[in-house]
Amino acid sequence: MYNNKYSSQLLEKAVTEIGRLPGIGSKTALRLALYLLRQEEGRVDALAESLTNMRKGVHYCQICYNICDDERCEICSNPSRDASTVCVVENVQDVMAIENTMQYRGLYHVLGGVISPMDGIGPSDLQIESLVERVRKGGINEVILALSPTMEGDTTNYFIYRKLEGTDVKVTVIARGVAQNDELQYTDEVTLGRALAGRIPFAK
Amino acid sequence: MYNNKYSSQLLEKAVTEIGRLPGIGSKTALRLALYLLRQEEGRVDALAESLTNMRKGVHYCQICYNICDDERCEICSNPSRDASTVCVVENVQDVMAIENTMQYRGLYHVLGGVISPMDGIGPSDLQIESLVERVRKGGINEVILALSPTMEGDTTNYFIYRKLEGTDVKVTVIARGVAQNDELQYTDEVTLGRALAGRIPFAK
Repeated sequence: MYNNKYSSQLLEKAVTEIGRLPGIGSKTALRLALYLLRQEEGRVDALAESLTNMRKGVHYCQICYNICDDERCEICSNPSRDASTVCVVENVQDVMAIENTMQYRGLYHVLGGVISPMDGIGPSDLQIESLVERVRKGGINEVILALSPTMEGDTTNYFIYRKLEGTDVKVTVIARGVAQNDELQYTDEVTLGRALAGRIPFAK
Repeated sequence: MYNNKYSSQLLEKAVTEIGRLPGIGSKTALRLALYLLRQEEGRVDALAESLTNMRKGVHYCQICYNICDDERCEICSNPSRDASTVCVVENVQDVMAIENTMQYRGLYHVLGGVISPMDGIGPSDLQIESLVERVRKGGINEVILALSPTMEGDTTNYFIYRKLEGTDVKVTVIARGVAQNDELQYTDEVTLGRALAGRIPFAK
């Protein structure tokens, strides 16, 4: 009887490890492993090294908790950015998304998630205390809350807002409304309601 | 100005390497990299090691060209398998698929692809010569062609058939017909035509 599903234990091990990645099933894992088997040894080494180097070498910025290679990220150490404005985001991807708009010149504060009792994530699991300390140190005029427009995001917004009460920082939240190119008739009522409530003077 | 899309060059390198894998775009690559960043260092090392170990350690069986960890694969070195029957398949996944049927007790011969002039794959890129040699050495009664039912598969079948002319081996090809649970009305005409032509006596 042919007992192993895979004819090579080395292959099986690699497929198991690749298959542990989120969103990658065993068939995709096998396809990727066989693809790597056909590549030059140097290419596979480069991939493997890039993963271990990243895991070992990446730091979190001591100011904003963005991912970086040094103690401070490039944004925090850039003197031409406006250090009086801090945008609070959930994760690194959100920093990238906002940077890509090229509309924001301030700094960030990466929470590392949002408060979610269902997932067992409380305020102490997030970089909220460090945000409050950062504000207390002074020099910050505005904190922009840019979390996801979900129940968890709203809860976190409110929690941060309460934590910052008593400081003289201005707390704002990014606008909620209809998205560009969305059709009004298909927009859900909460979004549409918020868009109406948050209307602004028309400007040409 | 914030020039780098990624705030960490180590992250960027990892995303680039992961994004080179087939079917993985830059967004998925970033998601996977950030997932790995959140894992224990040991888990990332285990993944990286499994890839390099696989690439360095995997051999091709000197008889059937299946993937294995030694000179001979488990199937070829298993004395209880029927060494007089050889099933010709395109790749390693096909060996697994046939093994999973638990219906086959013979050996294999893995071609490594099919003849495909469009992709620049000729007979000399495949393990066809080694198959002919294997048959010429004797001891093989039947060669079962189990390639994909495509133009390229058919071409390769015919090429192998011609190459084996003159030897006294029996060359067979796996049945083509309607698949289990397929609806007849939606079956394409080539498949249905082949199913009719290949009809066999009804057996209860």
